[in-house]
Amino acid sequence: MSQPYDRVFNFSAGPCTLPVEVLEEARDGMMNYKGSGMSVMEMSHRSASFEAILAEAEADLRKLLNVPDNYKILFQQGGASMHASIIAMQYMKQGDMPQYITTGTWGQKSMEYAKLLGDLDEIYSGKADKYRCAPEFDSLKLNPKAAYHYYTSNETIQGVQFQTDPTVDGTWVCDMSSDILARVLDVNKYGIIYAGAQKNQGPAGVVTVIVRDDMLARVPENMTPMFDYRAQAENDSMFNTPPCWTIYMCGLVYKWVERQGGVAEMNRRNKEKAGIIYKAIDESGGFYKGHAAKEVRSIMNVSFTLPDEELTKKFVKESEAAKLDGLKGHRSVGGIRASIYNAFPKEGCEALASFMRDFAARS
Amino acid sequence: MSQPYDRVFNFSAGPCTLPVEVLEEARDGMMNYKGSGMSVMEMSHRSASFEAILAEAEADLRKLLNVPDNYKILFQQGGASMHASIIAMQYMKQGDMPQYITTGTWGQKSMEYAKLLGDLDEIYSGKADKYRCAPEFDSLKLNPKAAYHYYTSNETIQGVQFQTDPTVDGTWVCDMSSDILARVLDVNKYGIIYAGAQKNQGPAGVVTVIVRDDMLARVPENMTPMFDYRAQAENDSMFNTPPCWTIYMCGLVYKWVERQGGVAEMNRRNKEKAGIIYKAIDESGGFYKGHAAKEVRSIMNVSFTLPDEELTKKFVKESEAAKLDGLKGHRSVGGIRASIYNAFPKEGCEALASFMRDFAARS
Repeated sequence: MSQPYDRVFNFSAGPCTLPVEVLEEARDGMMNYKGSGMSVMEMSHRSASFEAILAEAEADLRKLLNVPDNYKILFQQGGASMHASIIAMQYMKQGDMPQYITTGTWGQKSMEYAKLLGDLDEIYSGKADKYRCAPEFDSLKLNPKAAYHYYTSNETIQGVQFQTDPTVDGTWVCDMSSDILARVLDVNKYGIIYAGAQKNQGPAGVVTVIVRDDMLARVPENMTPMFDYRAQAENDSMFNTPPCWTIYMCGLVYKWVERQGGVAEMNRRNKEKAGIIYKAIDESGGFYKGHAAKEVRSIMNVSFTLPDEELTKKFVKESEAAKLDGLKGHRSVGGIRASIYNAFPKEGCEALASFMRDFAARS
Repeated sequence: MSQPYDRVFNFSAGPCTLPVEVLEEARDGMMNYKGSGMSVMEMSHRSASFEAILAEAEADLRKLLNVPDNYKILFQQGGASMHASIIAMQYMKQGDMPQYITTGTWGQKSMEYAKLLGDLDEIYSGKADKYRCAPEFDSLKLNPKAAYHYYTSNETIQGVQFQTDPTVDGTWVCDMSSDILARVLDVNKYGIIYAGAQKNQGPAGVVTVIVRDDMLARVPENMTPMFDYRAQAENDSMFNTPPCWTIYMCGLVYKWVERQGGVAEMNRRNKEKAGIIYKAIDESGGFYKGHAAKEVRSIMNVSFTLPDEELTKKFVKESEAAKLDGLKGHRSVGGIRASIYNAFPKEGCEALASFMRDFAARS
C-alpha cells in the first residue's frame, strides 16, 4: 500500500509526521499567502496578516483545550529544555524548594537544569526502576508552600504517561510537550503547562506556554525580558520577533485537529492506534516486551525490546526497507520506539503490528 | 510591471523578502524532501537527512564569510534580543565592565538588557543626536581589560551602518543581524558575531552565532546549558531540538547567495540598490530628508522623512496601492523606511525611486 506523494510511515519521536493536508496548504500558500503578495516567512510580524495568524492560532488552541480566561497562551522560542530552565529562573525562589517528580529522561534533565539554579526537592524518581512507572498523585508528599510541583506528563523515551490530570491541588507545572492535544485536559488543575511544538503541534522552533494569571504576577521584577513570562504576556508573544512560520504551521495543525473532531476524537484515535501496537507486543509470547508498566503505558510512544541486540538491529533494518521509518529506540532504553502522535495514521500502526507479527514468526 | 506569482515589492524590515527560487525549492520539497518520504519539518533532527542539511548550512555559511577554523558557527533559538542577553550572562563578569557603543534602537535595547545583569560602560551614544551617526573606531576609548566591546553593525530603524570592520584591536562582539552576508567581512576582527536570520538569511526563528574558540573557553562553569555557547558548540547546535525548518531555509539562502556570486557581489548590488533610493532623496530638493548622516548611510535600510505627517500618511497609502509594501517608518523615527536586504530586487528600488519622484512632483 503506497502513501500519497510516496511518503513513508514516520515513527520519529519529534519532529514527526504532520497531516498531509496541512503540508499541502503550506505548500499552496508558499509563493503568495492569501493574496498578501508574499510567503508567511516573508511577512512582517507587525503586519495585519501575521497578527491575524497569531491571534487565530491563540484562539484555536484556547478553544481546543478549553483554556479559561484567567490563563494566557504564549508562543515562545528556545525549546522545552530552555523553558524548563526559564521556569526555574522565574519561580524557584518564590516559595519553599520546588518539588520535582521524575518519570523519565526529560523530567530528569529538567530537574538537572533547575538544580544549576538552586535547591529543589525530588519527591518521586522512577530512576531505580529504569523509569517504568509513574506515581499516583495522591501518594505524593506535596508541600503546599513549595514554589511549584513539576512533572512531565508523557516521557517519550520510556513511553511512560500520566493517565490523568493532577488529582490533588498544588501549583502544578507540567511539561506537556509530547501529549498536549492528545487528551482532554482540565487546564484549571495547572499553574503552567508548556509544550514544545514538534510532536502534536507543528515543526520544531516554538513552545506554547499556558500560564495562569497569578503565576504571571509572581514573576520577579527586573528579570531579563526574554526570560520573563509577564513581559512576554504583556507583549502578546511579540516582545521580539516570534518564529512566525512555525506559529503559522501550528495554527494550521490546530484547525486540522478541530476538523477531525477536536481533542476528544484525537484521544479516541490515539488509544486505538496505540492499542494496535500494544496488542502485537502482548500477543507475541514474550518476544516483544513493553518497557513501561501496563498501567502507565503511553498512547504517544510505544517503547519495547526484542530478545537481543542482533534481532533489534535486524528489525530496524528490515522495517526501514518496509517504509516504516524512525523506529530505532533511544540508546538509553534500547529496542524499538514507535512514536504515534496525533497526525500519525492508523494505517501505519496496522502496518507496524503486521510487520512485528511477521518478524517474530520468522525469527 | 507584474512580479511572478503576483507578488508585491516587500520593503519590510525583517522578516522580509526571500529569493523567489528559494521559496520555489521549499515548496517543491514540501511533501517529500529528496525522496526521504517526508517534509524537512517532519524529519528527526537526529536523522542522516537533517544532519546533512545542518552540516551543509554550516559549511556554506563558513565559506561565504570565509570563517576561520578557530571559530565555531552555532544555530541557536531565541532571537537576537535573547542572545544580547545570553552574551551578557556569559561574559559580562569575565573582565572589566563591558563597553557598549549605541548607534540606534537595537544597540540601546541590547545595552538595557545587559544592564539588568550587571554594570557596563557606554563609551559612545548616538542618542542625543537622534541616532544619525556612528563613531570612528579609532576615536573610541577602549579599555583593553573590558570583558568585551559591543556594537550593532547596522541599525535598521535609523538606517545607520558602520562602514568597516573594527579598525582597532579588541574583544569585539557585534550584532550583525541586519547586514551579515551583505558585505565582505574579516571575521578575525571579532570575538563573537551573531545575527538573527530574518533579514539576510532566512525566516525568523534562528540566530547564527560565530564565536572564536577562546571566547568559548571563557564561558563560566555550571551555566544553564541553553545559555552556554560552549555546551552548544560541543553538541554541534543540537543540545536540544534545533529549529530544523528555519535552518533548512537559511541553507537554501546561503546556496542562493553563492550562486549569485557570493558576498562581494551582494555588496555590489546592495550599494547599487541603496544608491537608487538615496539619489531620489538627494535630488528631491529637500522634499525627502535622509535620517542618517551621509557618511554612515545604511545599504540595508533607507530611512527618510517627508515635510509633514499628512504627506507621510498619503505616501504610505499610495505606495501600498502601487504594490510597494511595508514602507511605513518605525514610530520612533517616523517617515518612511525602505528595507532592501540581499534578496530584495533592484527593480523594487527603481519602482520606489520612480514613485518618490512622482509623489514629490504632485505634492
